[in-house]
Amino acid sequence: MTARDRFDLLLTHACIATLDAARDDGYGLIEDGAVGCVDGHITWIGPTAELTSGQRDAARVVDAGGRLLTPGWIDCHTHLVFGGDRADEFEMRLEGADYAEIARAGGGILSSVRATRAASEDELFEQSLPRAQALLADGVTTLEIKSGYGLDLDSERRMLRVARRIGEALGLTVRTSFLGLHALPPEFAEDAEGYVAEVCDRMLPVLAEEGLIDAVDAFCETIGFTRDQVQRLFERARALGLPVKLHAEQLSDQDGATLTASFDGLSADHLEYLSEHGVRAMADAGTVAVLLPGAFYALRETKLPPIDALREHNVPMAVATDLNPGTAPLRSLRLAANMACTLFRLTPLEALRGTTVHAAQALGLHDRGVLRNGARADMVLWHARHPAELSYWIGGSLADRIFVAGRTATQTG
Amino acid sequence: MTARDRFDLLLTHACIATLDAARDDGYGLIEDGAVGCVDGHITWIGPTAELTSGQRDAARVVDAGGRLLTPGWIDCHTHLVFGGDRADEFEMRLEGADYAEIARAGGGILSSVRATRAASEDELFEQSLPRAQALLADGVTTLEIKSGYGLDLDSERRMLRVARRIGEALGLTVRTSFLGLHALPPEFAEDAEGYVAEVCDRMLPVLAEEGLIDAVDAFCETIGFTRDQVQRLFERARALGLPVKLHAEQLSDQDGATLTASFDGLSADHLEYLSEHGVRAMADAGTVAVLLPGAFYALRETKLPPIDALREHNVPMAVATDLNPGTAPLRSLRLAANMACTLFRLTPLEALRGTTVHAAQALGLHDRGVLRNGARADMVLWHARHPAELSYWIGGSLADRIFVAGRTATQTG
Ligand SMILES: [Zn+2]
Ligand SMILES: [Zn+2]
Repeated sequence: MTARDRFDLLLTHACIATLDAARDDGYGLIEDGAVGCVDGHITWIGPTAELTSGQRDAARVVDAGGRLLTPGWIDCHTHLVFGGDRADEFEMRLEGADYAEIARAGGGILSSVRATRAASEDELFEQSLPRAQALLADGVTTLEIKSGYGLDLDSERRMLRVARRIGEALGLTVRTSFLGLHALPPEFAEDAEGYVAEVCDRMLPVLAEEGLIDAVDAFCETIGFTRDQVQRLFERARALGLPVKLHAEQLSDQDGATLTASFDGLSADHLEYLSEHGVRAMADAGTVAVLLPGAFYALRETKLPPIDALREHNVPMAVATDLNPGTAPLRSLRLAANMACTLFRLTPLEALRGTTVHAAQALGLHDRGVLRNGARADMVLWHARHPAELSYWIGGSLADRIFVAGRTATQTG
Repeated sequence: MTARDRFDLLLTHACIATLDAARDDGYGLIEDGAVGCVDGHITWIGPTAELTSGQRDAARVVDAGGRLLTPGWIDCHTHLVFGGDRADEFEMRLEGADYAEIARAGGGILSSVRATRAASEDELFEQSLPRAQALLADGVTTLEIKSGYGLDLDSERRMLRVARRIGEALGLTVRTSFLGLHALPPEFAEDAEGYVAEVCDRMLPVLAEEGLIDAVDAFCETIGFTRDQVQRLFERARALGLPVKLHAEQLSDQDGATLTASFDGLSADHLEYLSEHGVRAMADAGTVAVLLPGAFYALRETKLPPIDALREHNVPMAVATDLNPGTAPLRSLRLAANMACTLFRLTPLEALRGTTVHAAQALGLHDRGVLRNGARADMVLWHARHPAELSYWIGGSLADRIFVAGRTATQTG
């Protein structure tokens, strides 16, 4: 055994849910398992009993004492960078105010746009960091963060820069999505086409050139942008070599999932009104269905996404928080997994795949979400014995130790 | 200023939600407020600007920096002492098993009874403590814990002793409720009357004599115990000088709330099927309505408790977790408050009263739940600026510092 091969980190006596389909078609369990890591990657995984005495001489050994180990969780859909919050609007609505009154009081998405535009980069970072820390505290080691509350070049840039800074500060992987087509900013209130041109012709190429965009997203909806407008954006994204994804079929069927699939999109998200036609298109393209039960819960929706059809056509399902100030101020991916089970009737296995291997796929990441040789050593040791507990317990944090690339994650930023 | 008067703890520059009705009919806010404590009680509360320089010379000063301070939260309905968990059953159900299959696999409440009976006192303590710690981590400083998974004298005693030990280990106030009439144990499967007699004539007086019972509870339901059986229990409780409360009208109207009110009960809990008649009886008796939205959520119930009628008749509403292994594995009272707003349409103010002042009333405690002179210095400093945020943010922990009787709470046990 050479020094190069010596494990930096060795975890022993864990109940490992590898999620590795090469092991079995379920959790891929190793009952009394061990994982050895070198330079941030897994180089050995198997039964603890099969470790040689040489292997046991690792730089750091953690005895899991039978606790559950899973891949680090991946939140593949968040809007966690924003200024202010909308607790006042939440309260007004529960005190009986209708939407018109809330709008008159300056509520709705544009209140987040105002607060985000008004915040400096440092202020935005300070306000947003605790939300990423909350996700990390319950096991998230990779997350996506969207822009979309800036809606002008400078403010969108500031959001994306803050997203990158959050990743650096916490040592997590952050993937950014440019969501310029999130809402119509007040200065383009009467000119949607003008705003789409501004996004496609100016904001997108500039921010892509600055390396701030990992993927391109949009909100395709009667109250958002049309399929044609989104198509124009996606064509620009393709020309720039950027992958696309879409907020699709949340409140009505705009056939957005099909459009996304036709661009080999990473994911289509929400999908309550997804048609059979859309399901087939996603299956053919390998586009991931990202389920967002937190928004469904908070909006008290009743129309369920077509889970059975997604299963039948083997569309991979991911589960994410949608963490945002309006429709899902949800600060725990594990709670989203519970909601996916409780409200959407996913099985705990589907929910766990949805927050690991399928979420990785939704971000175009192929080095994580599964515990196997060669994978990144992003792992969570849980205060649990069986993977079903992760979606069973509602609220609180179950994470015991969180490893990012083989090192204990810092939660203090 | 004498040494006796010197503050052990002085909090300054907090946004204080006192919940003190003497201040106003809302949160009882003090915008830039201070609280001084001596010997675990509040001896001064008011605007920071009004502190004298002598008062500012406290043994310990905490500058809240504008963050929100509330009374310590109170979870007035939990079943958090139990052996095992029911994650396997949760998973089976989502994989399509019906109740008969789950029962054949040994599921349901009796599986918790088996696991609880099989656990030693130390094992039960070790398994249950993390659940109380999870509640504490998000701001709970007083909690109620019920027996009811033992269903024989020794096992019920063990549960109640563990409940007391949890309070001592964490430095929290734990109020115990004896819930012998929770379910029929297997050895009395054909003899409900025999079991009721065992509970009333033997278990209740013995455990009361041992000082383990602070209140007496029962499950009045078609699948639980009849109104007549509960009445017999309540008569014994009254003879022993113990207050009563009831799991009432959760799945059907058994007129249990009226029965509870007729015994001047502390609370009637669940109440989805509560009648107008029951509401009036509770109002007249001063019985608190304890709402348990976590069970409503997990069971995907659709019948809402009569919130408007409770408001109209000024019945105080509390909100609790119902933390239990079957119908509400809910480890955060703040999440229960969010569910009370989202699912039951309580206002954030009602939800906050429900987890503080009204929850104290539901436990018969008059020294807490409000921040005012003379009250216990149980307080939570939050990562928030406005009280509505506490029910707005879904999941994660918002608690910054937790004070129990004027000292920082230990979360490690
Ligand atoms: Zn979204
Ligand atoms: Zn209960």
